[in-house]
Amino acid sequence: MNVDKINKLFNSDLNVINLGLEAFGESLADLGVNTTQVNWTPPAGGDIELLAALDSLEERKEKIQTANDKAHEIILKGKPELVDIAIAQDVIPGMKKKLVLHAGPPVTWERMCGPMKGAVIGGLIFEGLAKDRAEAEKLAASGEIEFDPCHHHSTVGPMAGIVTASMPVWIMENQVYGNKAYATLNEGLGKVLRYGAFSEEVIDRLNWMKEVLAPVLQKALKANGPIDMKNIIAQVLQMGDEGHNRNRAGTSLIIRELAPYLVMLDDEKEKIADVFRFMHQNDHFFLNLSMPACKCIIDAARDIENSSVIVTMARNGTDFGIQISGLGDRWFTAQAALVDGLYLPGFTAEDAARDIGDSVITETVGIGGFAMAAAPAIVKFVGGSPEDALEFTQKMYEITGVENNIFQIPALDFRGTPTGIDVIKIGETGIFPVINTGIAHKDPGIGMVGAGLVKPPEKCFYDGLKAFADQYGKK
Amino acid sequence: MNVDKINKLFNSDLNVINLGLEAFGESLADLGVNTTQVNWTPPAGGDIELLAALDSLEERKEKIQTANDKAHEIILKGKPELVDIAIAQDVIPGMKKKLVLHAGPPVTWERMCGPMKGAVIGGLIFEGLAKDRAEAEKLAASGEIEFDPCHHHSTVGPMAGIVTASMPVWIMENQVYGNKAYATLNEGLGKVLRYGAFSEEVIDRLNWMKEVLAPVLQKALKANGPIDMKNIIAQVLQMGDEGHNRNRAGTSLIIRELAPYLVMLDDEKEKIADVFRFMHQNDHFFLNLSMPACKCIIDAARDIENSSVIVTMARNGTDFGIQISGLGDRWFTAQAALVDGLYLPGFTAEDAARDIGDSVITETVGIGGFAMAAAPAIVKFVGGSPEDALEFTQKMYEITGVENNIFQIPALDFRGTPTGIDVIKIGETGIFPVINTGIAHKDPGIGMVGAGLVKPPEKCFYDGLKAFADQYGKK
Repeated sequence: MNVDKINKLFNSDLNVINLGLEAFGESLADLGVNTTQVNWTPPAGGDIELLAALDSLEERKEKIQTANDKAHEIILKGKPELVDIAIAQDVIPGMKKKLVLHAGPPVTWERMCGPMKGAVIGGLIFEGLAKDRAEAEKLAASGEIEFDPCHHHSTVGPMAGIVTASMPVWIMENQVYGNKAYATLNEGLGKVLRYGAFSEEVIDRLNWMKEVLAPVLQKALKANGPIDMKNIIAQVLQMGDEGHNRNRAGTSLIIRELAPYLVMLDDEKEKIADVFRFMHQNDHFFLNLSMPACKCIIDAARDIENSSVIVTMARNGTDFGIQISGLGDRWFTAQAALVDGLYLPGFTAEDAARDIGDSVITETVGIGGFAMAAAPAIVKFVGGSPEDALEFTQKMYEITGVENNIFQIPALDFRGTPTGIDVIKIGETGIFPVINTGIAHKDPGIGMVGAGLVKPPEKCFYDGLKAFADQYGKK
Repeated sequence: MNVDKINKLFNSDLNVINLGLEAFGESLADLGVNTTQVNWTPPAGGDIELLAALDSLEERKEKIQTANDKAHEIILKGKPELVDIAIAQDVIPGMKKKLVLHAGPPVTWERMCGPMKGAVIGGLIFEGLAKDRAEAEKLAASGEIEFDPCHHHSTVGPMAGIVTASMPVWIMENQVYGNKAYATLNEGLGKVLRYGAFSEEVIDRLNWMKEVLAPVLQKALKANGPIDMKNIIAQVLQMGDEGHNRNRAGTSLIIRELAPYLVMLDDEKEKIADVFRFMHQNDHFFLNLSMPACKCIIDAARDIENSSVIVTMARNGTDFGIQISGLGDRWFTAQAALVDGLYLPGFTAEDAARDIGDSVITETVGIGGFAMAAAPAIVKFVGGSPEDALEFTQKMYEITGVENNIFQIPALDFRGTPTGIDVIKIGETGIFPVINTGIAHKDPGIGMVGAGLVKPPEKCFYDGLKAFADQYGKK
């Protein structure tokens, strides 16, 4: 009889699995009952609309999986090579004198944050289109200057991410799928354009990069031959880098790779020495290589019908935006977040700009914050503990579809990095991509004030999921 | 009454700590008793002589601790700087034309292993003292050539560790204690002198290193200024190196540090390009810097009365030997062990030479195998899992006296590396230093056949402990 069975159950040794609310399980454990806690939250945080969206996608599950498998295959097979350096206007699709590319989703001059405005001012002065801040601001607001996301032009830029016509850019080429990706060369630390500085020192440096750094590196690169970026990134993940905020190994490997060719150039020794010194003094030099390498990998996986894989994450200091493979060029945006960070001496959260930059393309492809387990030293920069670094990576496996074939994390027994962020899994689990990032001062021209971890706004992902369901779900 | 108390005990919830034999604890755990296992073994493995030795040292415990604290202070304060490159005969104390230095404790020509004999042959040919193998072997056996450990001349050498008068050497200088240390420059991978090769190719390379590599690097080093090796080693431990068998980061940092100065030299560009290429193609280039840096640190802690800190561990392919601070220049030796390793394709344990080289000076100072937790990628080379790498380091804390102040391991929450190996703790715990190492082919001239982990012979440490007790213990 039922009552007998109930009695029998409760008179025997219970082994309880508790789903969700921990209080239940804790009470049992206190009574000495063997209890296992399973962290379970309702899908989509219990949001009715989202649950409906997820439900509507149920019958298309197989098609979605097939499409995502295709996306994963493309991502894993992609072979980005560093092939050349050239001037933006000569190689970036659609680039022209009065077009200014910027990080993140579309944003108007009026809505741009302080650092981005500062970088635009600097870019216009560098281009000779304005002679000072006042002229540049007037020109920027006049309608004569077109602004467009770097992402719309196969380009990525860190922090403000401003790219103008005369700037030299790295050129990546995907050897398997043929697509290219571009990024400027990293200016260095301190008062630099990407943090919104536009003083004479900044413009002088940009000119030196254009006239000396880029031509010298271009010749050395051509003599060396194309550099397999996937291989280099795989190595740096085994050398304590994660390719976003810790790039010391990457910078070192690029220097040593090009060194024998740099010294053979006919340029004046002093110039080449300056090039070496410039790279050596900037441990983030490699960031402007890892970013377009990742862009080059993921762009080949765009526009796959039925695919819920996220192909872009990016911020402009005002908005955070994502793009989803099966939804083409649509952006899903929300206000960029404040970063939870460690501040340099003299600065506090009061001074911080909002999350900014295309560098989250690294997380989009499974490195950066997703590979923090490979880079425990980074916690000295962004906060937390090495234990946290391991956990962040492990959490990301829950919202990705596949493990990388080449990017491996020694500390996790050489497990491939979490690759192929799935907006559906984000909806189901309520787990969001983890991102680590530098923090800019909110006023233009000051520079970096700290670094930390940032959680992207949920709205982007939920809007994207709903739009995906609208397009692909059962009506 | 006792019986009541016993009954009371056994009728209450028992929380048991089980020391030693696991079977007892396992039986209790099977019965549902809350049991904690403590791994305990009798000191000195129960050996009566050793127990007596340990006992006799009891009353001198405080003096020993004070002496060891002194040793630790010296080790932690030591500041080895790379200051110059010069020819061995001009700088190594006692060096002369017919003196050949070798790795490990003292060994005669007759007792030398294959690779070491091959390296001696190569060294004699390089010096112009013999023109071929036959002449060299005759000369080596004649009594005209003096053989002495590198260690007796403030020098360390990897694998065969052969140093002859005309070879260029790195010069380390301890900025705090003034002592110097020396090592040759690393020849590269494949058929090289340190693995016992002595063909024309090997001699040609040694000549190139003497005539081109060393002078070029020496000028760049002088222009750069002294390099703080402790700082560099601290960095490489955060970049996936451990300074013994994984040196990719170290090699990279040296190249980038010297690059601006190398390119400024008046030497032909092709020569400088060859120097860059030579370093770039040899990820173990840094080994010959980490070794003398460690030698430089530990030598300052020699000859401290009452100190049980181990100041040398070294092997010559025949014997493994140690030296203890409080016992001066005495060596305690035993047969060198076979390495438990991963073999390159085509080779097996049948081909292996015994443990050889002074590179275990890195473990002696708390890096190398002791810092494996910082270098999980190394398990692809030496075997095991990243989990093992963490455990090896953690075990070493049990036989060392202090945690390093500058060498930190991010994965262990930036814990300092285990520093100051104590022969008394080895006796008490039965835990021996963990060493990872390359494996040479047992025949001269073939080269590296694999890499792995090796447990040093217990006899050295137990003999050392007994001698320490003889000298310092209560009679």
